Amino acid sequence: MGCILGLDVGGTFIKGLVLKDGKAVYEHDIPTRTGLELAGCIEELVELLASGSGITFSKIDGIGVCCPGVITEDGEVVKAANLGLENYPLKELLQKNLSLPVKVCNDANAAALGEARFGAGGGVANSILITLGTGVGGGIVLNGELFEGNKRAGAELGHMVIERGGVRCTCGRYGCFEAYCSARALTESTRKAMRQDTGSAMWKTYTHDTADGRTAFEYMDTDDSARRVVDKYLQNLACGIANLANIFRPQVILIGGGVAAQGTRLTKPLQALVDREIFAADYAPVEIKCASLGNRAGAYGAAALFM
Amino acid sequence: MGCILGLDVGGTFIKGLVLKDGKAVYEHDIPTRTGLELAGCIEELVELLASGSGITFSKIDGIGVCCPGVITEDGEVVKAANLGLENYPLKELLQKNLSLPVKVCNDANAAALGEARFGAGGGVANSILITLGTGVGGGIVLNGELFEGNKRAGAELGHMVIERGGVRCTCGRYGCFEAYCSARALTESTRKAMRQDTGSAMWKTYTHDTADGRTAFEYMDTDDSARRVVDKYLQNLACGIANLANIFRPQVILIGGGVAAQGTRLTKPLQALVDREIFAADYAPVEIKCASLGNRAGAYGAAALFM
Repeated sequence: MGCILGLDVGGTFIKGLVLKDGKAVYEHDIPTRTGLELAGCIEELVELLASGSGITFSKIDGIGVCCPGVITEDGEVVKAANLGLENYPLKELLQKNLSLPVKVCNDANAAALGEARFGAGGGVANSILITLGTGVGGGIVLNGELFEGNKRAGAELGHMVIERGGVRCTCGRYGCFEAYCSARALTESTRKAMRQDTGSAMWKTYTHDTADGRTAFEYMDTDDSARRVVDKYLQNLACGIANLANIFRPQVILIGGGVAAQGTRLTKPLQALVDREIFAADYAPVEIKCASLGNRAGAYGAAALFM
Repeated sequence: MGCILGLDVGGTFIKGLVLKDGKAVYEHDIPTRTGLELAGCIEELVELLASGSGITFSKIDGIGVCCPGVITEDGEVVKAANLGLENYPLKELLQKNLSLPVKVCNDANAAALGEARFGAGGGVANSILITLGTGVGGGIVLNGELFEGNKRAGAELGHMVIERGGVRCTCGRYGCFEAYCSARALTESTRKAMRQDTGSAMWKTYTHDTADGRTAFEYMDTDDSARRVVDKYLQNLACGIANLANIFRPQVILIGGGVAAQGTRLTKPLQALVDREIFAADYAPVEIKCASLGNRAGAYGAAALFM
């Protein structure tokens, strides 16, 4: 194995890393230039990564790039609203300009592969990463490889209905996993609980506008309202996770995104709830852990597309 | 490719078939002897299949067997209540007594592989079979191969909650896909609708005891109560199917089991409902079809374990 570059294109920064013989030897980030300038911006970072790590282009085996949105098998970005892209032939542009092999995939899926190979997945065959951020993203690794479904349109784990006829989701369905378990949903239910219990301890530090996905966890031991918000959130999360455990029976389900900062306050009660709900938990246990690569997971996973 | 035998062990019959160069050339079934006599009973059918098709044992490349219950990777039946088995080393017994390679897997999973390779799946890479019978079974074929999860405990598609806190399921969870979409659930909601509308046309032919999963479909065009039962059933089914479509994005989702006898009365409205619910249905469509191998799917799939 030689040198591989992994790049994760976000709305504000492109994160880059250089893997040498499977080990990260250099990292560098630059601000994202969106729209039609994106390919040029990525090429600039590729050159900075190469020069910064002292690697000549001829030693680079491949460049993995991940970004938000639906990406075709040919590496075309069908649509990525916050990058200002539509039908953008990213892989083709990069391969032509850099004269190096390029692979492009969705960032949530890349993060799942990164965590599976380099992070908390610990190299098990089957793992799932659930990213609890503004939405609920997900990625599926089966037999050590990324699984994305036909035309890479699968792995939309956030858009699994867990409560038919429930809260309307951004996707148009009612009762999606995402509508209950995103950081946004947690923030909303925290603020609602505060409004309904104006004497709650949460009000001492936070106002209706400053409370966020961390607030209820922070006050769960001192404030009944906060406790109830966390309990309900954990139950919803356990429901979706137990569904995925029954469907995939992976060895590990990883939690990433902002909410994962809660660590064992999140995973410990979650594990107990999931163990109680799934089929044959003793026979084929599913471990619930927090992801470990933070916002580097996508770049690692993008590089792993060449491994 | 030479000769492969496929056997599907049910509670009352063991179905067997002989594949020669990938084509079924002979079929034979015998009554099941359950409990510790099962291996002997299977061996008897193997001999009948060989003699009936004029194939000597030395020409058999392998024997695939499927049966209900959880089966370990070593082909041990952990538990199959209606066969009276617990920790029964089926593969080991058969291999020793027959001196031929044997593979054993779960019957619902085998049926999915059978349909994917020989039936309505039509050889696409990714397909899912949902069997609507007493329960809701399922099997997952990814990249042309059976996917069963760690220790083969996955693919429990019926035990995905679609309505949190809903109807209690046999598995202990509340609101499972199975609790709404099994033939049993359909029968129950039909009988409930009849009790609530004693003037309904369904009563002319059926009594509370004789109405079953077919009744509401039979009267859906003449009877409002029946129509409502079917509509609600289709909506629940579409919800679970849309979940699986968003998660796996297979090319095809197949419906098997007794309810599949409704054919396009089932699949046509279902397709419309699912198309409306899933992400990017135009970009990566998911076709909904009825399975085509009937109760032979398991035997085909068991044989396909050697292909």
